[in-house]
Amino acid sequence: MPLLSELASHLNATFIGADIPLQRIASLRISDPDSITFAVDTSAAKLASESAAAAVIVREVDAPLVSTKSALLHKDPYFAYAKLAQLFAPRKVATPGIHPSAVVDPSARVDPSAEIGPLVYLAPNSKIGAHVRIHAGVRVGSGSIIGEGSELYPNAVLYHLCVVGARCIIHSGVVIGSDGFGFAPNAGAWEKIPQTGRVVIGDDVEIGANTTIDRGALDDTIIGNGVKLDNQIQIAHNCVIGDFTAVAGCVGMAGSSIIGKHCMIGGAAMIAGHLTICDRVVVSAGTLISNDIIAPGRYTGVMPTVDHAAWRKMAVRVRKLSQ
Amino acid sequence: MPLLSELASHLNATFIGADIPLQRIASLRISDPDSITFAVDTSAAKLASESAAAAVIVREVDAPLVSTKSALLHKDPYFAYAKLAQLFAPRKVATPGIHPSAVVDPSARVDPSAEIGPLVYLAPNSKIGAHVRIHAGVRVGSGSIIGEGSELYPNAVLYHLCVVGARCIIHSGVVIGSDGFGFAPNAGAWEKIPQTGRVVIGDDVEIGANTTIDRGALDDTIIGNGVKLDNQIQIAHNCVIGDFTAVAGCVGMAGSSIIGKHCMIGGAAMIAGHLTICDRVVVSAGTLISNDIIAPGRYTGVMPTVDHAAWRKMAVRVRKLSQ
Amino acid sequence: MPLLSELASHLNATFIGADIPLQRIASLRISDPDSITFAVDTSAAKLASESAAAAVIVREVDAPLVSTKSALLHKDPYFAYAKLAQLFAPRKVATPGIHPSAVVDPSARVDPSAEIGPLVYLAPNSKIGAHVRIHAGVRVGSGSIIGEGSELYPNAVLYHLCVVGARCIIHSGVVIGSDGFGFAPNAGAWEKIPQTGRVVIGDDVEIGANTTIDRGALDDTIIGNGVKLDNQIQIAHNCVIGDFTAVAGCVGMAGSSIIGKHCMIGGAAMIAGHLTICDRVVVSAGTLISNDIIAPGRYTGVMPTVDHAAWRKMAVRVRKLSQ
Repeated sequence: MPLLSELASHLNATFIGADIPLQRIASLRISDPDSITFAVDTSAAKLASESAAAAVIVREVDAPLVSTKSALLHKDPYFAYAKLAQLFAPRKVATPGIHPSAVVDPSARVDPSAEIGPLVYLAPNSKIGAHVRIHAGVRVGSGSIIGEGSELYPNAVLYHLCVVGARCIIHSGVVIGSDGFGFAPNAGAWEKIPQTGRVVIGDDVEIGANTTIDRGALDDTIIGNGVKLDNQIQIAHNCVIGDFTAVAGCVGMAGSSIIGKHCMIGGAAMIAGHLTICDRVVVSAGTLISNDIIAPGRYTGVMPTVDHAAWRKMAVRVRKLSQ
Repeated sequence: MPLLSELASHLNATFIGADIPLQRIASLRISDPDSITFAVDTSAAKLASESAAAAVIVREVDAPLVSTKSALLHKDPYFAYAKLAQLFAPRKVATPGIHPSAVVDPSARVDPSAEIGPLVYLAPNSKIGAHVRIHAGVRVGSGSIIGEGSELYPNAVLYHLCVVGARCIIHSGVVIGSDGFGFAPNAGAWEKIPQTGRVVIGDDVEIGANTTIDRGALDDTIIGNGVKLDNQIQIAHNCVIGDFTAVAGCVGMAGSSIIGKHCMIGGAAMIAGHLTICDRVVVSAGTLISNDIIAPGRYTGVMPTVDHAAWRKMAVRVRKLSQ
Repeated sequence: MPLLSELASHLNATFIGADIPLQRIASLRISDPDSITFAVDTSAAKLASESAAAAVIVREVDAPLVSTKSALLHKDPYFAYAKLAQLFAPRKVATPGIHPSAVVDPSARVDPSAEIGPLVYLAPNSKIGAHVRIHAGVRVGSGSIIGEGSELYPNAVLYHLCVVGARCIIHSGVVIGSDGFGFAPNAGAWEKIPQTGRVVIGDDVEIGANTTIDRGALDDTIIGNGVKLDNQIQIAHNCVIGDFTAVAGCVGMAGSSIIGKHCMIGGAAMIAGHLTICDRVVVSAGTLISNDIIAPGRYTGVMPTVDHAAWRKMAVRVRKLSQ
């Protein structure tokens, strides 16, 4: 159990109160005397003071509120929580080797430090970097490349010729490189347009469970460095997502849309195709973006929710606005 | 072929008309003289009377409408249909044994009555209960537990340290226990917060295809007993869903939201994070809930749909309301 | 490298300018002197004239705009692009044989011309047609049938007794035949209704990554010929989708809905249950359809999006319409 002073030192921070040993970081809701919790603001500090935790990460201004406990002072307790959680629960590193049940094409190149799990398939000419962890049932298509230190959880799928950067985390059920939805109308039927671009993913990208990223039609679909994608997101062909943009769950992006850097896209938002969103845009949850956005800021478009009887009146009156 | 009298006896119900043998239960739309159909209300009873079915499950009040056929009288024909469908199509039970192509870690504990299908992977210290059926390609993470009588369809994935109760049904492509979407902003980039909670799922839960349930950040994500989740649902970290709540397809729930018992969440509804919905709430399809709900009832918030030209006028006038 | 004259001949079209060799088809954005690009309209033709491409597919009316390059004249340059892309990137045909790591039940019937990839599972009595390509990790349930020339990408799943037509393309993570969401309320709990229908998919259907199609409750779920489904779509039990209808990503269709032929459903649209949409209907992105549609045309219902401060005013005023 590290001492509070060791945690403070790890964060280049100071502490007040007893220098106690701490076994874990705990939430405000469930803590115990072996744990340190965190309070991002004053109201959280009040809750922390009533918790069972022995210590609290607080802003200096909130320290008096937790005076019955030890306190680790930090200007950003949420960031401090992230760093301490990493300390208490470090990522598991690769156990080098290829599980005997994995199927590795003779032309695949696997770094000797990589871990290839059970029942994995690595197609011809795929290339797995140093310290990569590939869990059970992952499929890596021909010619695809996984950068150093990346981790792919069970049953993730990469199609052919895709590129994943270094230190990426790809969760289960993710599909990268499937065909974009491209068809030319032809006498009432649909003529398939071969999708010959790739998906190119930068470094330090995390992709949540069951998210899908289609390969480009001619050019590539591109995910920048440090992008974080939550679960069940759909990224269509030829989208470009700028560095450090974060996208919440269930978002859909139609084809050829370009999202800037440092954007935050709320859950279930939908981005129409062939448009451009500039840097530092926040899209609220559930909002459909159907035009370019050229100024940073927050954008919203959802119907207010009320009880159903009130909604019926509201909907009738909104509908009348069309007349 | 069971006789109508046997079906009635199975339901503790009465019947009128000839005691005929019946081979199957059929829909109102497609039936034949070997089948029994069901009519939940008067208008369905009229359709049933015109169907080819030899017998009909009806409410007593509707029996005169199907007088040309045999009738099984029940106060709830839909429930009676469910029970008879179970009789005609009983769930297949486990064929005990481990397929030779499965990879089972030596430290995994598999009940001898369980069925482990082809190309399955059971990680260290996982535990599979009695009569569990695990289909092809399922991955069970280290230390995870599957309760008695549960069934996991092909390619479902459980991460480590998750708990699935008894008699659960988990469909293909489901991912349970993936990392929650937790990052602390840090000088324009994102610092990953390790997700160290679990997913704990009660008894008699059904989870539809490609639904994802993230593990908690510090505490657990909890799915109550008897909860039914449809396909393509996203449950973020630290959500709690109360017993017997049913959630339709494509719903998203953001982090730390608490849904009460006996709720019904309509398709593609979105629940924002850190809010509480009380018991017995009905959320309409497509509705975004962004505040606590403290009274039972139905809540709605969707834009009325009209033809596109009318919508253009409507949208312009709604937008003017912001001025 | 084919000559421009050969490409023109392949399309039954004419060309003007030098008869140059061409290595690839390229986008307007990224092209080089070995490539031919395409311009669907006048503004695209202006961009094409500034591109590095040596040749351009244009409408005859736009030919003067690209007079510095060779031009292939076609009344529908987008269709011509599709056909040439197919020529430059022909679909890979099946390499006959069963990978030694695949698990094929002795009762499964596999056409000798089919390709069965690594770690595939074919259940009892499944039937795989001529020239079918089944990639790594696919699961085909008992009694299911895959028609001639179809291709299933890694980790796609078919449950039992489903039918896939000829020349279909099924992407990774697709689940076909999972149980529909059918439960009868019973004293606060939910009684499962066995789902005994099938999924029947026509010819020339493409299904995008992680899309799910539930089996019917009693009758079948039916996908017509030439239907194109994008990624992350949810089709509930007993839906019927008419021939040549195209559905964009993230769409949800609730149970028993019937969609006509030649419809186009925009991304993230939601179709409520038990309704009918006639032929040739266009549903805009993000729109919730909750009533029958009986006339062809385009239908829309989404809240206009504005900056967040304006939205707050707008939402308050819309909410007042309920009073």
